[in-house]
Amino acid sequence: MNEIYMRRALELAKNGIGKVNPNPLVGAVIVKNGEIIGEGYHECYGEAHAERNAVKNAVEDVEGSTIYVTLEPCAHYGKTPPCVDLIIEKKFKKVVVGMLDPNPLVAGKSIEKLKNNGIDVIVGIMEEECKKINEVFLKYITEKIPFVVLKSGISLDGKIATVSGESKWITSKESREDGHFLRNGLSGIMVGVNTIISDDPELTCRVKNGRNPIRIVVDTNLRIPLESKVVKNNDGRTIIATTKRADETKKKNLINLGVKIIEVSEKESRVDLKELMVKLGQESLDSILIEGGGTLNFSALKEGIVDKVRFYIAPKILGGENSKSAIAGIGFSQLEEAVKLNNVTYRQIGDELVVEGYTKS
Amino acid sequence: MNEIYMRRALELAKNGIGKVNPNPLVGAVIVKNGEIIGEGYHECYGEAHAERNAVKNAVEDVEGSTIYVTLEPCAHYGKTPPCVDLIIEKKFKKVVVGMLDPNPLVAGKSIEKLKNNGIDVIVGIMEEECKKINEVFLKYITEKIPFVVLKSGISLDGKIATVSGESKWITSKESREDGHFLRNGLSGIMVGVNTIISDDPELTCRVKNGRNPIRIVVDTNLRIPLESKVVKNNDGRTIIATTKRADETKKKNLINLGVKIIEVSEKESRVDLKELMVKLGQESLDSILIEGGGTLNFSALKEGIVDKVRFYIAPKILGGENSKSAIAGIGFSQLEEAVKLNNVTYRQIGDELVVEGYTKS
Repeated sequence: MNEIYMRRALELAKNGIGKVNPNPLVGAVIVKNGEIIGEGYHECYGEAHAERNAVKNAVEDVEGSTIYVTLEPCAHYGKTPPCVDLIIEKKFKKVVVGMLDPNPLVAGKSIEKLKNNGIDVIVGIMEEECKKINEVFLKYITEKIPFVVLKSGISLDGKIATVSGESKWITSKESREDGHFLRNGLSGIMVGVNTIISDDPELTCRVKNGRNPIRIVVDTNLRIPLESKVVKNNDGRTIIATTKRADETKKKNLINLGVKIIEVSEKESRVDLKELMVKLGQESLDSILIEGGGTLNFSALKEGIVDKVRFYIAPKILGGENSKSAIAGIGFSQLEEAVKLNNVTYRQIGDELVVEGYTKS
Repeated sequence: MNEIYMRRALELAKNGIGKVNPNPLVGAVIVKNGEIIGEGYHECYGEAHAERNAVKNAVEDVEGSTIYVTLEPCAHYGKTPPCVDLIIEKKFKKVVVGMLDPNPLVAGKSIEKLKNNGIDVIVGIMEEECKKINEVFLKYITEKIPFVVLKSGISLDGKIATVSGESKWITSKESREDGHFLRNGLSGIMVGVNTIISDDPELTCRVKNGRNPIRIVVDTNLRIPLESKVVKNNDGRTIIATTKRADETKKKNLINLGVKIIEVSEKESRVDLKELMVKLGQESLDSILIEGGGTLNFSALKEGIVDKVRFYIAPKILGGENSKSAIAGIGFSQLEEAVKLNNVTYRQIGDELVVEGYTKS
């Protein structure tokens, strides 16, 4: 039974995708006499937590009931009062928790307080699933560095463009639409300046009721055209990462157009991606989607900033020694150095395949 | 019920893999009063057909029983007498056939003869599965050109070697072992001379009780080293496909060492692969496995000689603009020209993936 209610709480939590970053996704279900009497989730950054919404939505008095919550209730005053106090005040009988607070300094504190107040507590129901939906939060809250997903739509032979440069479209409409859900869930989307120059993409999210991620362009020499779409239609949500090589006048022009410039060190004559991640973390970006060309993709993997890789693979063969590889750059010289993905999952979209895996085990 | 017995007949048929080429794989099951009383399959090229083996193995008199056979029984004298006469002579009551004879001149002839002799006949039970296990036979019997499978073990980003050329091994032991079953089932294995020069492979089949395929080396300029393994240990089973560019003395030396030389025309300064396939068909090779490098793989796809593609994909990323792509060559210039695979299937071996598809629909 615990799993049934926790699964429902997880479903509810997912309604917050794209709306709560850098907060966690949390869902809560209140059960009394075997019936669900209240549900809630964390709906929007800075607003009420899942527990409070579930209590608010309850159709009966919650006294003596059980609350299922995907994440340990908070014990501190943040933008809202502590949920643990609410649970005590409302005289819940039992609390079932999916996972402890990932902050090691806080983990278990609320559990202890609940127990001290005579409330039954169970921890760790569907813990893996609870951790999975909050993989972004888990990294960001502990490291203050964004969780990075590298996404690419490729042919079966690993290509993103033919020898003549044709790239639209390798994967199907359905796969590309699926990819937009990633844009919706992550805070930033990052490309290299070459992608801007060659494709002039909008980098918006086309999910219904979705929201656009912050656009980040990696541009060592500040070559970005002032008339590119991410500059012209920036809504104050475009960041350009450059180095001291950038021309000062161009920098000023871009700032006047509403673009934010972040200057980072050089590493091997390019933007230092690791340093950039630290700085983007300071900008409250908890997560970044890289949809780069082969050069940026390789650099990101080599620098170790990528947490998760997702490839959409179309069953097509483009061939070509000189066609564009999804992961290019200088490459890993030895097989031993190659990035090995862990916890790999496969699913199909039509006759295309989605492969997802983690760079760390 | 028909499907249960036909499925068993299909299972039996597969026991002939690697032993009956260029004959079809056929299985037969005899059922009387709801019990299987005899089973058989085509065990070895030139020997008894499945029906005859099933009758021979029957533990009761077959009169009045039903025989399930994956392929329409033969009506002609080949190396063995016609099975249709055996069925009539043994007074079977009913014959259930998976698929008709693929030879349009013969298809249905036996069915007619059986019906004329008062035997009930059902055709088309598990037809798709019966066609699938005989895809090699179906092509070869009608076109006299080998059925060609292109196999490659690649990284998730489509590479078969790192920038430094390291290629052993990208895929797991389990995936490589699985690949050896292909070598066992197909009559020939083909590589380019560059693979011989760089890897000096044995190109043998390491399946228990398996048999080695005939080895075919595509070598436009006859550059193959006389001391390579496929030349030294050829057992009269190595074919080198070359052109008139070949040095006559080297040709004689190779012939003296037991190698067969097939000379074909040039096409774009390389061995004409289409002509080669016709000539290999004339050598009774019904099927060929291409395990080439990127150049041969691309040429084979471009020339349209490939029927089926099988990729073993390891969840690793090698990267590199100059690392070796599984399908190289000049590549397809436009996306429209890319090879699109049909009837694609996916299966997992550990955390690796096997993708299989057909170049024709």
